[in-house]
Amino acid sequence: MTDFNEQMMHHALKLARRGVGKTAPNPAVGCVIVKDGAVVGTGWHRRAGTPHAEVHALRQAGDRARGADAYVTLEPCSHFGRTPPCADALVEAGLARVVIGMVDPNPLVSGRGIARLRAAGVEVITGVLEEECRVLNEPFLKHVQTGMPFVICKSAMTMDGKIATASGDSKWITNERSRRYVHRLRSAADAVMVGIGTVEADDPQLTARIPGGKDPLRIVVDSSLRLSPEARLLRQQSSARTIVATVARDAARIGALDAAGCEVVTCRSVGGRVDLAELLALLGKRGVQSILLEGGGELAGYALRHGLIDKFVLFYAPKLLGGTGGYGPFAGESAVRMDACFRLGRVSVRRFADDVMIEAYPEGICLPD
Amino acid sequence: MTDFNEQMMHHALKLARRGVGKTAPNPAVGCVIVKDGAVVGTGWHRRAGTPHAEVHALRQAGDRARGADAYVTLEPCSHFGRTPPCADALVEAGLARVVIGMVDPNPLVSGRGIARLRAAGVEVITGVLEEECRVLNEPFLKHVQTGMPFVICKSAMTMDGKIATASGDSKWITNERSRRYVHRLRSAADAVMVGIGTVEADDPQLTARIPGGKDPLRIVVDSSLRLSPEARLLRQQSSARTIVATVARDAARIGALDAAGCEVVTCRSVGGRVDLAELLALLGKRGVQSILLEGGGELAGYALRHGLIDKFVLFYAPKLLGGTGGYGPFAGESAVRMDACFRLGRVSVRRFADDVMIEAYPEGICLPD
Repeated sequence: MTDFNEQMMHHALKLARRGVGKTAPNPAVGCVIVKDGAVVGTGWHRRAGTPHAEVHALRQAGDRARGADAYVTLEPCSHFGRTPPCADALVEAGLARVVIGMVDPNPLVSGRGIARLRAAGVEVITGVLEEECRVLNEPFLKHVQTGMPFVICKSAMTMDGKIATASGDSKWITNERSRRYVHRLRSAADAVMVGIGTVEADDPQLTARIPGGKDPLRIVVDSSLRLSPEARLLRQQSSARTIVATVARDAARIGALDAAGCEVVTCRSVGGRVDLAELLALLGKRGVQSILLEGGGELAGYALRHGLIDKFVLFYAPKLLGGTGGYGPFAGESAVRMDACFRLGRVSVRRFADDVMIEAYPEGICLPD
Repeated sequence: MTDFNEQMMHHALKLARRGVGKTAPNPAVGCVIVKDGAVVGTGWHRRAGTPHAEVHALRQAGDRARGADAYVTLEPCSHFGRTPPCADALVEAGLARVVIGMVDPNPLVSGRGIARLRAAGVEVITGVLEEECRVLNEPFLKHVQTGMPFVICKSAMTMDGKIATASGDSKWITNERSRRYVHRLRSAADAVMVGIGTVEADDPQLTARIPGGKDPLRIVVDSSLRLSPEARLLRQQSSARTIVATVARDAARIGALDAAGCEVVTCRSVGGRVDLAELLALLGKRGVQSILLEGGGELAGYALRHGLIDKFVLFYAPKLLGGTGGYGPFAGESAVRMDACFRLGRVSVRRFADDVMIEAYPEGICLPD
């Protein structure tokens, strides 16, 4: 029975993933309705303001929903938002049982959908594949609980830990399959963030160049406002906006960047550099739930030292730069003792041909700055 | 049928692995004898001068070998060495069919065992799991074909590619399971090699501290003959000898190291440093088939630049040193362009809890020195 529950929840998770990156400010949710062991309805949340996963699945199931089981990755909502509450819709449709991956993380509504279902006599089971359901919406979870965006630090390096040669050459370290996956990460993120050094070195587009990809908001951290209005990310066709975060107050440059179509945000200075924590808080207030930090080493090093990274996605290409030259993934000061380094946990490994991708989460304390 | 052949060859490979590191100068070999679908005899080569895998398996099978199939990871020998030829023994025992993983790599004997079997009317199939059988004995293969030892470069680093902090602290980067695996690598190698810097920094024992482990020959590359006779690797209880390779001709120091029980080998100098290629050739002549290069960065960097590394075993611990400090796995000059870096191939990944181990082989050309 448990196996069948997990199997159906896996199905619901798979559906939910189709919405990842497109549902903000809502979480991605998937729903499967099962009657007599057969799937009679499926759905996933596609975009904020459109019907929730449960509604899609109920529509497809029709009368077959009566007495059926629903599998939902997230507790059904119990409040009137832009759409009516899904808990009510499940009760009205006559569902016998609702299996839930995780309860709603929002402390204001958490558990109310479940209570409403139970009050109406619907059997409710919770916590099926909860960990997977949490990971699916980890940016949403962090944002709803802290107001801060979830920051994913992506780095692509040789197997001896170099992201570029001494001359700044980094094209290409990883293979095409890894790079395509990075475009998927971009598409799933609300925003990508880079330092001005990376823009000057690589002149990147920072778009999600995959079928069905959604370009993320682009954020350039540019303390001294060096960004050229000619930069490729400002000149290209994309629906995504660009924000330049700076501590400089140069009206002429700000005007030129304004004219090039980007928004200049003036931040608090920390030793002449953008206060990244403040910038993240500002972006969180604007509804940015997830940020893919794409380099370079200066920005990543700053974010690491300040404990601002929530997840690491590290690519290792089957190459060795050899020697002591070139750049590592993080600039700045290093731990002096091995036991004072940053610890990672919840490691997972994936391969893209001979490229190896390691995902990990920070663990334990961070170094004082 | 192919599946069954591969299944039995996997069994023979598993047996053969028990001998890895103990059979020098012979290769590790496994043998399984199958009659009517049932295994009736198994064997592996345990040590040079003792019976070959086939002999063990035949003894166990007894009369049941008549009309049976033998699976051998390596072509049976056809010459009188310290033991009589196995091809003859298989013929005499009345085997109907012999399935062989790989033919003997020694150009002087290659194919003769197969020819002898076929001449006696035994059916022979070759090339079953050949790649796995080759990998099993890659040191033997290189040595028999080139006279040079097979050099495995092991490195343990943080996930941002650091093997030590700026102060030289490297204890411990990897977890206990990874370190235990390194002891297995040592036990399987004929020799371990380190630079004097590593001896001075870590004062290692370089023994295989696992049940049934065999301590490898220890080689310290010590161009200016700085090794202290008090070093732990000279003072411990171990059956393994220590060789110090140098270009210095300091009679007093050589005498002191002699007295401490180690052999000092004076090598050709390349810019004041030991000519590693010459040292490897000398070790190869002495019958050393495999060397585990255990650091530090200077020695590994030199070996990398000179194209002397045959395989990389890279451990990544779930830690980040952060910043630009600390040491990477290779010292010396780096490639200036990404497309001039050292390329690796045949990548495989293994996990030891949250440590990730990547094995890879060099591919393509190396940088000029």
